[in-house]
Amino acid sequence: MNLKEMVGIEAAKHVKSGMVVGLGTGSTAYYMVEEIGRRMKEEGLDIVGVTTSSATENQAKELGIPLKSIDEVSHVDLTIDGADEISQAFNGIKGGGAALLFEKIVATYSKKVIWIVDQSKMVEDLGKFPLPVEVIPYGSDQLMRLFTEKGLHPVLRQDEQKNIVKTDSQNYIIDLHLEQIKDPDELANWLDKQVGVVEHGLFLHMVDTVIVGYEDGPKTLQATK
Amino acid sequence: MNLKEMVGIEAAKHVKSGMVVGLGTGSTAYYMVEEIGRRMKEEGLDIVGVTTSSATENQAKELGIPLKSIDEVSHVDLTIDGADEISQAFNGIKGGGAALLFEKIVATYSKKVIWIVDQSKMVEDLGKFPLPVEVIPYGSDQLMRLFTEKGLHPVLRQDEQKNIVKTDSQNYIIDLHLEQIKDPDELANWLDKQVGVVEHGLFLHMVDTVIVGYEDGPKTLQATK
Repeated sequence: MNLKEMVGIEAAKHVKSGMVVGLGTGSTAYYMVEEIGRRMKEEGLDIVGVTTSSATENQAKELGIPLKSIDEVSHVDLTIDGADEISQAFNGIKGGGAALLFEKIVATYSKKVIWIVDQSKMVEDLGKFPLPVEVIPYGSDQLMRLFTEKGLHPVLRQDEQKNIVKTDSQNYIIDLHLEQIKDPDELANWLDKQVGVVEHGLFLHMVDTVIVGYEDGPKTLQATK
Repeated sequence: MNLKEMVGIEAAKHVKSGMVVGLGTGSTAYYMVEEIGRRMKEEGLDIVGVTTSSATENQAKELGIPLKSIDEVSHVDLTIDGADEISQAFNGIKGGGAALLFEKIVATYSKKVIWIVDQSKMVEDLGKFPLPVEVIPYGSDQLMRLFTEKGLHPVLRQDEQKNIVKTDSQNYIIDLHLEQIKDPDELANWLDKQVGVVEHGLFLHMVDTVIVGYEDGPKTLQATK
């Protein structure tokens, strides 16, 4: 079993019948969704899922997990999602899979958030992983210039065929190659104010529990928000 | 001549050959765009326009105004646009025509901004005009609940056939019926931080010149930014 599968299965243990569960996106969340599907089939687990991307929606449908949109539920009991980086202060960078907007929307309305990662994602400070910023296409070249002027080393995300990546909301992703983010709150505030920025991948003060996969087993950490 | 036509024609006098001009949206900006089209045909005025909506784009094309996207120009020399309300502090509410996002993007990259209004739009404090907020559809019901809890009196904008209005970016508009906005900067900061809010109609510290249409003629006011 790989580390991603290990933490995916471990996190699914937190899911109880009757819950509304936010289902994250990405290669680690994939295993958690698979495990929830298995438990529904084999153990009679009974939940409603709220997806964070078209990719997870398709996976959940194939597994027979009943789904609702975030607007069809009063709240989400628990969201389980991956992360691209988690700092010692339990802040995260997300959006490597371009699903950060819906992931953040679902996390915002969740009573509890669990992140699942392999040990390589645990860092002292955020920033080695490029920070994804979802932007409106109209004006995105101007934003690229602004980010360059500010020393934020922006790169417009393209796929392997050099086509501009579009999110589920038909926006673009600009990745900021920062190496080290000294003050995530300050950067988040600045990005929030920029016209044309829809959302950014800084998930600050949002997670309750982190499950980290190590070679010798999963370790569960409680975040101090 | 009605007051909107009067200020539209007055504002077009500020346009000089060689300029890149941001062309606003709405019933007042309409006359300004018409006048620029007339001056290009009859007076040899030579400009490039940057539009703020599909509606204005269509109008400009019919008038033969050459157009570029905001991403095809290094900057905009002058943007002329309408406003739904302008306070004594020269802050504005825009978005009655649902074009606030592109209007704000173009204004952000403009060296100079002129607003054109009839006298009825000049107010002491902002807020009688409902404040438009452009939001991502996914999670918009949750935002409606949040805005209601905060006492912001939100109404999801629908057209006359009761269909939800979609912006040029396929988002929704939530109008906040506030009556009076005591601290526009504080409200703007709060809205900027909300997940799912793409942009809002508070245009603060953005305008250089306001041209107001009165029965006895247009009056040009210089804003103190």
